Amino acid sequence: MRFGLSLPMQHPVGDDMSQRFGELVEMVRLARGAGFHHVSASQHYLAAPFQYMQPLPVLARVAGEIGEMTLGTGIMLLALQHPVDVAESLATLDVICGGRLVFGVGLGYRDVEFDAFGIPRGRRLSRFLEVLEVVRRLWTEERVTFHGEHFHLEDVGLTMRPRQKPRPPIVVAASNDKMVRRVARIGDAWAIAGHATLATLERQVGLYRAALEVEGKPFPPPSFSLGKELYIARDMDTALREALPYIATKYEAYAQWGQDNVLPAGETFRLPIEQLRQDRFIVGDPEHCIEQIARHQERLDIQQMGFRLHWPGMPHQQVMKAIELLGERVLPHFA
Amino acid sequence: MRFGLSLPMQHPVGDDMSQRFGELVEMVRLARGAGFHHVSASQHYLAAPFQYMQPLPVLARVAGEIGEMTLGTGIMLLALQHPVDVAESLATLDVICGGRLVFGVGLGYRDVEFDAFGIPRGRRLSRFLEVLEVVRRLWTEERVTFHGEHFHLEDVGLTMRPRQKPRPPIVVAASNDKMVRRVARIGDAWAIAGHATLATLERQVGLYRAALEVEGKPFPPPSFSLGKELYIARDMDTALREALPYIATKYEAYAQWGQDNVLPAGETFRLPIEQLRQDRFIVGDPEHCIEQIARHQERLDIQQMGFRLHWPGMPHQQVMKAIELLGERVLPHFA
Repeated sequence: MRFGLSLPMQHPVGDDMSQRFGELVEMVRLARGAGFHHVSASQHYLAAPFQYMQPLPVLARVAGEIGEMTLGTGIMLLALQHPVDVAESLATLDVICGGRLVFGVGLGYRDVEFDAFGIPRGRRLSRFLEVLEVVRRLWTEERVTFHGEHFHLEDVGLTMRPRQKPRPPIVVAASNDKMVRRVARIGDAWAIAGHATLATLERQVGLYRAALEVEGKPFPPPSFSLGKELYIARDMDTALREALPYIATKYEAYAQWGQDNVLPAGETFRLPIEQLRQDRFIVGDPEHCIEQIARHQERLDIQQMGFRLHWPGMPHQQVMKAIELLGERVLPHFA
Repeated sequence: MRFGLSLPMQHPVGDDMSQRFGELVEMVRLARGAGFHHVSASQHYLAAPFQYMQPLPVLARVAGEIGEMTLGTGIMLLALQHPVDVAESLATLDVICGGRLVFGVGLGYRDVEFDAFGIPRGRRLSRFLEVLEVVRRLWTEERVTFHGEHFHLEDVGLTMRPRQKPRPPIVVAASNDKMVRRVARIGDAWAIAGHATLATLERQVGLYRAALEVEGKPFPPPSFSLGKELYIARDMDTALREALPYIATKYEAYAQWGQDNVLPAGETFRLPIEQLRQDRFIVGDPEHCIEQIARHQERLDIQQMGFRLHWPGMPHQQVMKAIELLGERVLPHFA
């Protein structure tokens, strides 16, 4: 089992982002020492009520700090990008980080982003799929000719290539059933965004497994990962008291952003935090965390778990304590 | 007088880019110690016969190495970007580098780039101008509504802001007369791409000065800079022998790329290197370099000079020697 840390990209408007970025670098160093295997950076644009750093420069800067860890976009909003720019920028990043890049991508769901980038609702998915296909082909083929709905390339050859041959692993986020099945076809692995309850995820892993079988691909794939909100403290009461208010605030924003609209029917974020957290977030003492991680591993057959243990406004020292405690008490249990 | 180093982004296809990137980081550290004030990274896509790293991840990674130096895009091909992505990515970079970003932009000229990004010839300039205007407004206004030929934003507010207030300086590259005059209106300073002869540049600085006067802006502006091909060795013969073959190869590619087509009438790169270098490149011993730098400073009233002293294929140790020699013998002369 490999463990990842989702870096804190978003902070309340008004926060000093230089200070927040300095803290992020400290977290990377601490996570490396604590036995984490991976760090990732997510992406949103126009992220009111938060300030949201862009992942590409953040990942490039921390590439100098990761040691033996891998590093990934987790995830990049591919429909908003141009495939030639993505292919060359991520190839450069893969070179910079010594061939340790995991290319995580997703469709996104926020109207404010698609509107600002001029992408009508009915064209989002096709654009996402085209960008992904073109990037993959530019990375692996000598010359690419492509005529799609959104992009046209005529006999184009990419010279700036990733360090990893033939290319970095491509993991794809998916929340609804249809997209989960699609990932079996278009990605090297499904990156489970663990916003849904364990019961929902378990059901969807079944769909994914069946879809992989149709494709003749093995289950579980090597980079099969689950992202989870996780917070740890010495005792359960402290963990709940220190984490829940920040998680609650974040999930109120998610609900406003419409994140839960892309989850399967029956899933909603508009619940009291006490109810929302059941089987959805891991918050507790070391024993509770170990038990919950093992439970997710067993029920979902995941190879990697990525933790988000920072939410906008949470004090830096709390996050550092949580990373440290994971390194001392939880990660060794799965080594 | 401030001195900048243009980082080596391009290398022959087949070179090990991880090794080349490691060398680039060494150059940044050496330049910092040698008394340079600035490092910059340029941009091209699909850059056959070279591999070309993308500047954003490179600059973000070296932000951890620059000490008191500033850092800049030099230049970014703005017409190929989306303004919301540029505004947030460069804001993030400005945060990461401690508010030391100089935002250098240019139109570009290579058909292969515009074609791959789906931008017809007649819409290049308008797209460039729109991206620049929208980025500037997103950085400085609370809410932006913009309806142009290429982009539509309706009441959009950027939360991810640069560290510099109100925004990083915007310097704009220009080669032909019309663009030079336009820079007086749209940029904080002209970034002279010193591909033309000194006589041509001197004439154009006159145009720029007059255009600034019309705008009611002072001359020279603080970031007024000249980029130059420069190579230095202990003696003139060594400098010429070590540099000219690499410069010649690069300028053959420039001619194929059409770089000289955007220069004023009478300027061409299709000349023997001995003739091409006259009043266009600075190659020589320390005394020659000092003399030529002083001559350019005096005739063009520039505040900063950026040197490119690496061309594809040039051995790393040669570049390091040249940086060291500049620090020992040339930069102190202008301190």
